[in-house]
Amino acid sequence: MAATTTARRRRRTRESISPAAAAPAYLTRRIPAYELLDEEALTRLENHAEWLLSEVGIEIRDDPVALELFREAGASVDGELLRFDRGHARALCATAPATYTMHARNPQKNIEFGGNHLVFGSAYGSPFVTDLERGRRYATLEDFQNFVKLTYLSPWLHHQSGTICEPVDIAVNKRHLDMVYAHLRFSDQPFMGSVTAPERAEDSLAMARIVFGEAFMQENLVIQGNINVNSPLVYDNTMTAALRVYAAANQGNVISPFIMAGAMSPVTQPALIAQAHAEVMVGIALTQLVRRGAPVVYGSFLTTMDLKSGAPTFGTPESTLATLAISQLSRRLGLPFRCGGHLTASKLADAQAMQESTNAMNPAIMAGANFIFQAAGWLESGLTIGYEKFVMDAEQCGSLARVIQGIEIDTDQLAGDAYREAGVGTNFLGVSHTMQHYRNANYRADLCDASPFEQWSEAGCKDMQQRAYDRWKQLLREYQAPPIDPSIDEALLDFIARKKDSVADAWY
Amino acid sequence: MAATTTARRRRRTRESISPAAAAPAYLTRRIPAYELLDEEALTRLENHAEWLLSEVGIEIRDDPVALELFREAGASVDGELLRFDRGHARALCATAPATYTMHARNPQKNIEFGGNHLVFGSAYGSPFVTDLERGRRYATLEDFQNFVKLTYLSPWLHHQSGTICEPVDIAVNKRHLDMVYAHLRFSDQPFMGSVTAPERAEDSLAMARIVFGEAFMQENLVIQGNINVNSPLVYDNTMTAALRVYAAANQGNVISPFIMAGAMSPVTQPALIAQAHAEVMVGIALTQLVRRGAPVVYGSFLTTMDLKSGAPTFGTPESTLATLAISQLSRRLGLPFRCGGHLTASKLADAQAMQESTNAMNPAIMAGANFIFQAAGWLESGLTIGYEKFVMDAEQCGSLARVIQGIEIDTDQLAGDAYREAGVGTNFLGVSHTMQHYRNANYRADLCDASPFEQWSEAGCKDMQQRAYDRWKQLLREYQAPPIDPSIDEALLDFIARKKDSVADAWY
Repeated sequence: MAATTTARRRRRTRESISPAAAAPAYLTRRIPAYELLDEEALTRLENHAEWLLSEVGIEIRDDPVALELFREAGASVDGELLRFDRGHARALCATAPATYTMHARNPQKNIEFGGNHLVFGSAYGSPFVTDLERGRRYATLEDFQNFVKLTYLSPWLHHQSGTICEPVDIAVNKRHLDMVYAHLRFSDQPFMGSVTAPERAEDSLAMARIVFGEAFMQENLVIQGNINVNSPLVYDNTMTAALRVYAAANQGNVISPFIMAGAMSPVTQPALIAQAHAEVMVGIALTQLVRRGAPVVYGSFLTTMDLKSGAPTFGTPESTLATLAISQLSRRLGLPFRCGGHLTASKLADAQAMQESTNAMNPAIMAGANFIFQAAGWLESGLTIGYEKFVMDAEQCGSLARVIQGIEIDTDQLAGDAYREAGVGTNFLGVSHTMQHYRNANYRADLCDASPFEQWSEAGCKDMQQRAYDRWKQLLREYQAPPIDPSIDEALLDFIARKKDSVADAWY
Repeated sequence: MAATTTARRRRRTRESISPAAAAPAYLTRRIPAYELLDEEALTRLENHAEWLLSEVGIEIRDDPVALELFREAGASVDGELLRFDRGHARALCATAPATYTMHARNPQKNIEFGGNHLVFGSAYGSPFVTDLERGRRYATLEDFQNFVKLTYLSPWLHHQSGTICEPVDIAVNKRHLDMVYAHLRFSDQPFMGSVTAPERAEDSLAMARIVFGEAFMQENLVIQGNINVNSPLVYDNTMTAALRVYAAANQGNVISPFIMAGAMSPVTQPALIAQAHAEVMVGIALTQLVRRGAPVVYGSFLTTMDLKSGAPTFGTPESTLATLAISQLSRRLGLPFRCGGHLTASKLADAQAMQESTNAMNPAIMAGANFIFQAAGWLESGLTIGYEKFVMDAEQCGSLARVIQGIEIDTDQLAGDAYREAGVGTNFLGVSHTMQHYRNANYRADLCDASPFEQWSEAGCKDMQQRAYDRWKQLLREYQAPPIDPSIDEALLDFIARKKDSVADAWY
């Protein structure tokens, strides 16, 4: 009897924490996007972006190939400084597709970019990792693999992002091989490849080809690069070279100016927004000059800094406004749009972390973002990824997935019969309408404790961070890898071994 | 030298934590409200509310005066059950003013209700209080006074709310006297009076008259009652009697259906929204039947419950959608609108608390709410008010105050000169534009720590809750009461003494 109960509870628990299989591969939005600015304001921002590109210019450093592509397209090139006639950069973006499919190793996890679709992805780029048990430390390949697994297990994360954290125990020139392998082996979702050097981008593509095949990849998107701008108004050759590798292969790029206003742009939001718009148009234009129609995402990562200390800050009101506004510029360009994330400067998963993260995420949701990575795990301004924070954020993505479903009004939802049954002044707990709906009526956030104080006290007065600790430990215990064709796995491992043997380790 | 530094630091600290004097008495919104639903959906919800009032009906219990007012106005009265022809209740709301001023003891703190204005108020109604030092306990009058002081000290809280917490050390039939006195003595902002019995509402008015004068109050709003509906579709006489007392004196009422969908309404949002709309219209109509033109707020408090345990839940996606939708119905009625708050089921000021609170507040801000009380201090589904939570929430109100300012686009904000000065690829930290703007460019949330990990560690690895503890202790240490005419103070104390002597203590 006890054994049966335990088995049943275990089964129920597993279902409740690993419903990823039943979850949608991506989301479809059914609520309108918020329109912060009117036509006049938007036009003025667009004109200012055109002024920046025509008068101030933008540099592409140490990449003569990219400069030549722009020269051939009719831009003015003065050394490494590019200038565009008004409207020229925008016109070059016109061949980028408005919507497209990204293919996953598991076709049931293919995702759609653009239009009314929304894709959540995990964090990207932190050298440190933290958890309640071991504290803050450098991230390792094991951590990286763990976060791939946690992303795979979440029903609310659709995209593995890329460098979820830096596996700093692996040589700088080799870790991309282990990261791409982890994405392909421990998950079956879409992901990003390396952008830290063109040959690493090529390796990422080569590994993807082992899984998807070269012919398929000529026609279909399976891997992306995340391209940052060296704001203000500079692209470095590392980024443009990686961009060119992905675009030439007809694979994806996410062009993301990361701008802290006051340092990498003027401190005022209109300048910040117009500059980001100018910068991202040039990146998008380059993808199209490399290969017309190459899939690309209009990205933005606009935030603030503490102007006394110089520290980056997140979830601030100024970043909310900038996010809302640039989303409108993106929509007017008609491209898939990336912004937002569960972002915070906090060092641990405390009240600050979730206040800032929720504030950073909400405008992205209201703005109608299509792609939100950095959606799970961020701490310490991106320097650290947290295990507890990760599972909190993922659950919060589930809540937002419900918000964008909106409200459907029909006879059943209006529940006229429930009033006929219950009458006036009696509760609705037992009426048929409630019984029919109670299982699916509300999104259930398991980490949010709503129990009475006494029950919560008896359970040890755990705060959300402590409950989150229990959650991720359990998830990793129960993780099972998705199936993979053994010959493909072998080919991947063989490729990695050969690549690793071919050069010495480099550590910077 | 050391003494001078200390003195300077003290002065600076006091300025930074008590800038209430320089803060605006209320906010004016410069961003559009979010429109979730289209015309067809809104009409359908309104029609369903009319169906509820015409077919199902609504009860007013044990208040023959209110029933008679509705009978005279042409409603159908069957025992205690009221029914309205379609459109009738709505038509009765038409004499309520769309905008009005609420007067504070300090005229500089007068606030505006309705239109584009927004007023933040503190929490309301919790019997328990908690802080990091002493833990959870019953609230006392000292706690009540402390929260009045903390509200007064915050630059971002404009309204004292009313029963910020229940001073359970004072007899039930007398505590309203001490509460109203605390509002009048320890603050100079607007506040609400008692609604727990009509004679206590009368006492609240009497004390207000000592300060404002009877003639002034015949023409001007200085005190409000917060009227809850006993949903579904019932008003109790305690509430309607208090409502009538305030309305008859031309003072204010906030009509607030508090509905947990699944219990006090059907579980589906369209039913919840239509029912709340029907309920609130009847309360508003009653204020107008008592006195045409009496100021009133269209309130709503729509949330969810854990349908397995029956526990109330906050900041959920379903409550977000309901808040966004009912705000549209309120705007179509053209009345000042109350919704939202920093609401949570969490027992302490942890990640859950600020995640849920931020999620509960954001839709109210996007929806264009005019009055948001419960904006500071809420914990444990309203059963507890927290000192640490209070100061966190108040600071977050400051951030939202910045959001609703929106983005102003002009030549200075576009910062063309900054680019001419900095050029391409160099940072903007030192340019004139940044130097001119850096002090006021960004809202500064002092409780949010953005310092480097090492600095944060050296300062003791404090989480936000611990920093908030330091904050409220300091605020209370530095609190100084606003001035009051000694003769008025004496008259208030005399009134209270006489009232307290006139009856025995009652404890329930």
